[in-house]
Amino acid sequence: MPTHLRSPLAPKTGLKVYPVHGVRLATQATGLRYKGRDDFLLAVFAEGTSVAGVFTLSLASAAPVRWCRKILGQGRARALLVNAGNANAATGKPGEALAVQSARAVAAALKTSPSQVYLASTGIIGQPLPKNALAHFVPGAVKKLSNKPSSAPWQKAGCAIMTTDTFPKVVSRHAKIGGKTVTITGLAKGSGMIAPNMATLLAFMFTDAAIPAPVLQTLLKSGVAGSFNAITVDSDTSTNDTLLAFATGAVAHAKISSATDAKLRDFTRVFQEVLVELAQLVVRDGEGAQKFITIDVTGALNDKAAHNIAMAIANSPLVKTALAASDANWGRILAAAARSGEKMNQDRFKVSMGGIPICHDGGLLKNYNEAPVARHLKGREITLVFDAGVGKGKARVWTCDLTHGYIEINAGYRS
Amino acid sequence: MPTHLRSPLAPKTGLKVYPVHGVRLATQATGLRYKGRDDFLLAVFAEGTSVAGVFTLSLASAAPVRWCRKILGQGRARALLVNAGNANAATGKPGEALAVQSARAVAAALKTSPSQVYLASTGIIGQPLPKNALAHFVPGAVKKLSNKPSSAPWQKAGCAIMTTDTFPKVVSRHAKIGGKTVTITGLAKGSGMIAPNMATLLAFMFTDAAIPAPVLQTLLKSGVAGSFNAITVDSDTSTNDTLLAFATGAVAHAKISSATDAKLRDFTRVFQEVLVELAQLVVRDGEGAQKFITIDVTGALNDKAAHNIAMAIANSPLVKTALAASDANWGRILAAAARSGEKMNQDRFKVSMGGIPICHDGGLLKNYNEAPVARHLKGREITLVFDAGVGKGKARVWTCDLTHGYIEINAGYRS
Repeated sequence: MPTHLRSPLAPKTGLKVYPVHGVRLATQATGLRYKGRDDFLLAVFAEGTSVAGVFTLSLASAAPVRWCRKILGQGRARALLVNAGNANAATGKPGEALAVQSARAVAAALKTSPSQVYLASTGIIGQPLPKNALAHFVPGAVKKLSNKPSSAPWQKAGCAIMTTDTFPKVVSRHAKIGGKTVTITGLAKGSGMIAPNMATLLAFMFTDAAIPAPVLQTLLKSGVAGSFNAITVDSDTSTNDTLLAFATGAVAHAKISSATDAKLRDFTRVFQEVLVELAQLVVRDGEGAQKFITIDVTGALNDKAAHNIAMAIANSPLVKTALAASDANWGRILAAAARSGEKMNQDRFKVSMGGIPICHDGGLLKNYNEAPVARHLKGREITLVFDAGVGKGKARVWTCDLTHGYIEINAGYRS
Repeated sequence: MPTHLRSPLAPKTGLKVYPVHGVRLATQATGLRYKGRDDFLLAVFAEGTSVAGVFTLSLASAAPVRWCRKILGQGRARALLVNAGNANAATGKPGEALAVQSARAVAAALKTSPSQVYLASTGIIGQPLPKNALAHFVPGAVKKLSNKPSSAPWQKAGCAIMTTDTFPKVVSRHAKIGGKTVTITGLAKGSGMIAPNMATLLAFMFTDAAIPAPVLQTLLKSGVAGSFNAITVDSDTSTNDTLLAFATGAVAHAKISSATDAKLRDFTRVFQEVLVELAQLVVRDGEGAQKFITIDVTGALNDKAAHNIAMAIANSPLVKTALAASDANWGRILAAAARSGEKMNQDRFKVSMGGIPICHDGGLLKNYNEAPVARHLKGREITLVFDAGVGKGKARVWTCDLTHGYIEINAGYRS
């Protein structure tokens, strides 16, 4: 396992983290895959915590994903157990048994039902873990659970769930519900195998607001479209993509019973902000990423078509290698858009980068000067707009460039 | 433009090339993009030559592609003009005018109709060419046309259509039609932006058999599925993908009027062989390729599903980087298959590499020993089989690994 330098796109300063009332955390080092670092996170929730989740659409979902899907209907959570380094995916019946065993170990230690214990795993696919590999560490973790609200355990939690990530991803905000302040803190991990489809690698949202499970599920489902489903690093969807939200209800605020409740407006906005920022952090830590790229597609037949065009551009290795080299090769952007299968007008499309128009009506602008575009592309934050010239559909997605770093990381991942 | 080393997957010995009766060739150096090398090919056909073609499904097809589509219905060809280095794509109305002008120049020199002059371009997208850029070189090329059947002009033709290719791709075979020997010689170019959809970059088939245009079109359409549509280098479909077939009829053999004519059986088989071999050569020259990978998918719901699963595996950057590193990371193969959207049984799938079973029934084989698999993966020619465990559908595709070479070539393409 190579150690990678911190991504140049990582936030420059430590992010402020607000602890969430009703959540206690503990991290541990299992040594199962990594040496000398925490790779095991236990989060314990106040009684009555509600939960919502969205998961990978991969047809080979991992054992912990299948476990979460099974228990999600009950809407209650007392704990979340996450391990990094081994995805417990494609591990067959022994993998399923390991998941059940892990949930039971947590339930026994907390005197609750296994159906309130959520599991998530990330790491290598297809490597069986030894029996009790995770359950073994549960009693120790329970003893270490944080008792006072403090940001330190949250930072450690962000680190414990990393695999090839080069920095922890924690985003924290306050929101108001009916005059009361609540906290929303999210954790995410992910760096490669990022092309979420209804969910992403691992991301967890925690709030001390009192949001009933069905309302939380609605917020999560509608929030994921413009956040984790709008990013891609390498077009590979994982077997373990999991996004869970937990609401402890530790803050006593006016009762919420519907996602359209006006009192929930600020919370919904901030919840979405945290989702978007977490998703962007995943891209900023994309394997080998040197540039953060925002792609806007306009003028498509509808928003879905715009999203598909944007994703075709974002997933094009030729676009990504050109941008890595600060090369304003807009022909590759056009080619990628044109193979999306979505309608476009090849005599009316437009391309701009860094806000500078490059081409329209099927070709280069007269007197086009590449110098300012080249200057923009030399930066770390790239914006590009593609207008399909056929309608009013629009979409925004985020991706990163494709560099030697990606190859290095992924050619050496198992070694 | 960097100069790249010959692909390690290139054929070790020069391929034997049989000239095709009724085809005369000339190559030239225009200096439009490359210095000191031929980048312009003119092929002139005997009167009565029939033609068939399939083209990119990109919605932004290049001017020469649109030109060919327009004239193809007439089924007759007297010439083919190919230039390398500039795709004449996304060049708007001036690009279309340039195409018409080029066809007219060839028609004038040969005293034929422009609607019998086929055009193909490959190279950078979106860079306008100066007026007369290609027409200017037509009279000189006509003077240089080869008169005697010889293999040398065919080798030169293979070189003149290259862009980032590191070796020319010429495949030549004999076939029998009703006791008479005919020749089929194919040329292809392509190295990046390879994920053909109904056609590939540029490939040309020439035969001296007398095959009516509709029959030739049937052969080409059915042949492309298992050849150029079964390869991928980087999942990017080009704006210029063109596959044309020309039959000069210079050999007097029994008349053919249907693609199902029994007399055509040998020809059809050899025609398909040439298509497959050309397609494989394109993969063997995939940008940065170090390994040639054959992917077989079995046990899918149907053949189309199998093809989609195979392409999902072949296009996965995580699979391609793992294989570049000779890493038997079958979990990535499973993850790629599982995100194809095609049905699979995650408790019954199988994976093998180099003919060695690795996993079945949702997990690793008992007593699995990675050593022989690792030895296979260290070679240049990799085979892998994924069985989806749900049906009898099967498909085969070819791809290459993803290496630093790909990044180097594509981050520097325009410089």
